[in-house]
Amino acid sequence: MNICVVGLGLLGGSFSLAIQKVHKRARIIGVDRNTAHANKALELGIAHEIESFETGVAKADLVILATPMNVMVEQIQPALDHIQDRAIVVDLGSTKKDICEACVSHPKRGRYVALHPIAGTENSGPEAAFGELMEGKMMILCDTEKCDADALQYIELMMQALQMNISYMNSTEHDLHIAYVSHLSHISSFALGLTVLEKEKNEKNIFAMAGSGFSSTVRIAKSSPEMWAPIFEQNAGNISEALEAYIQKLKEFKDIIDERAKEKSLKEMRKANEIRRVLQGIPQ
Amino acid sequence: MNICVVGLGLLGGSFSLAIQKVHKRARIIGVDRNTAHANKALELGIAHEIESFETGVAKADLVILATPMNVMVEQIQPALDHIQDRAIVVDLGSTKKDICEACVSHPKRGRYVALHPIAGTENSGPEAAFGELMEGKMMILCDTEKCDADALQYIELMMQALQMNISYMNSTEHDLHIAYVSHLSHISSFALGLTVLEKEKNEKNIFAMAGSGFSSTVRIAKSSPEMWAPIFEQNAGNISEALEAYIQKLKEFKDIIDERAKEKSLKEMRKANEIRRVLQGIPQ
Repeated sequence: MNICVVGLGLLGGSFSLAIQKVHKRARIIGVDRNTAHANKALELGIAHEIESFETGVAKADLVILATPMNVMVEQIQPALDHIQDRAIVVDLGSTKKDICEACVSHPKRGRYVALHPIAGTENSGPEAAFGELMEGKMMILCDTEKCDADALQYIELMMQALQMNISYMNSTEHDLHIAYVSHLSHISSFALGLTVLEKEKNEKNIFAMAGSGFSSTVRIAKSSPEMWAPIFEQNAGNISEALEAYIQKLKEFKDIIDERAKEKSLKEMRKANEIRRVLQGIPQ
Repeated sequence: MNICVVGLGLLGGSFSLAIQKVHKRARIIGVDRNTAHANKALELGIAHEIESFETGVAKADLVILATPMNVMVEQIQPALDHIQDRAIVVDLGSTKKDICEACVSHPKRGRYVALHPIAGTENSGPEAAFGELMEGKMMILCDTEKCDADALQYIELMMQALQMNISYMNSTEHDLHIAYVSHLSHISSFALGLTVLEKEKNEKNIFAMAGSGFSSTVRIAKSSPEMWAPIFEQNAGNISEALEAYIQKLKEFKDIIDERAKEKSLKEMRKANEIRRVLQGIPQ
């Protein structure tokens, strides 16, 4: 079985390593515009050979797109153009509406399964990849009513073999909810990192005063700008709405603090504490 | 040696357990208005006996105040009133200006050392205490020029025995910087938790979509409201300034997203990535 992984970074690399554990005879054809990443992927066993996009896709039984979101939206049509008749294409992108729309009228639409693995780290590149990243995590499948039954079944089976949990969503709904649950927390973290860096020009104050709470909230401010800028662009409407709600909530907190309104402050924090129950259900 | 720990929660309890490792013969006198906490502390070996505030303080060679910030500000004067002549009082509070001001004219001011351990978790109460919480963490000592030399030396020695790093700061400066580096990240997390909980009334969407990035940024939204409300009250001016800067930064991000200004977005995130270097210097 030939699997073509387009984009040999954290996600593409981790999928390749995970798939090789369940598909012992899988041959991974890597595609990457970045030669250093391609060579590193060969060295790490993430890919067995490197090909151009067209050749790699044409040779594959399964194509996994794992490039930045804007690139994938441009790659989905050519990928469907070049695959063999019964091959399958998936993407691992964090937004789903644009990419689903980009191929909605393609004659081979049924061969495409839109995926969003809720898995990642703040690190990037092939060196950051590891075969256990997907285990126990959620895989969201979008607009599955547009998939051929055999393609969908195969992908569902593979995700279960990778020990992932599966959930189903409409791509438009997906993009709205993910703006709140994932994209917003990344922006809150980027903005917090910037606010503190700009205030504390003398970093010794950060070193002296920052604890695990600070580290935890700014951890994802280390995330790849090249990955996130296209996500923010494609999901701009929903993210803007989520940011507006977040800014509003922060203004309410600021009013509470300015007014020294301790009872209100307690009440808001107790409501926020409910997140404890929610977090217990989320794999780390 | 008698050590009186006032407030037998996460911090007081963890200090008690840590001190017992370096002071094998220390007798811990616990003080807590909450009878259930007091009993639990006895059971867990956090305290060897329970006394009233006045009796506990009067019997002690060292008094450790570890109650909510507003309570400590009220306790510092009575503590100094009731200690033996050569005994020492410390507090473990997250703001330092108000408590230092509250006892600045006390005849025994020299016996007080103002401490802020940069250590904690999102959990609270005696059950959350553990003897290793302080190891490798930073202890900030404030306004040490007002301490008697012997009291200061003793506390410095004890902190080093507890494997803590020491830094020195003026209490006013402390409160300004800690607003940015610690208090702001707690509010950003509380507000993020609330924004998502209010949007996602159907929690299955959170379960399906939340990954480790979300968990990380909202982890400290689980923190104790009873601990944080008094901190926000006492450091209101500085926190309000920090929140204003953070809201401003988020508005800039929102503009970038509304304008689909990808280059600006990349630039801001690359600046935020500098936090990676800073975080490497912070103990987890």
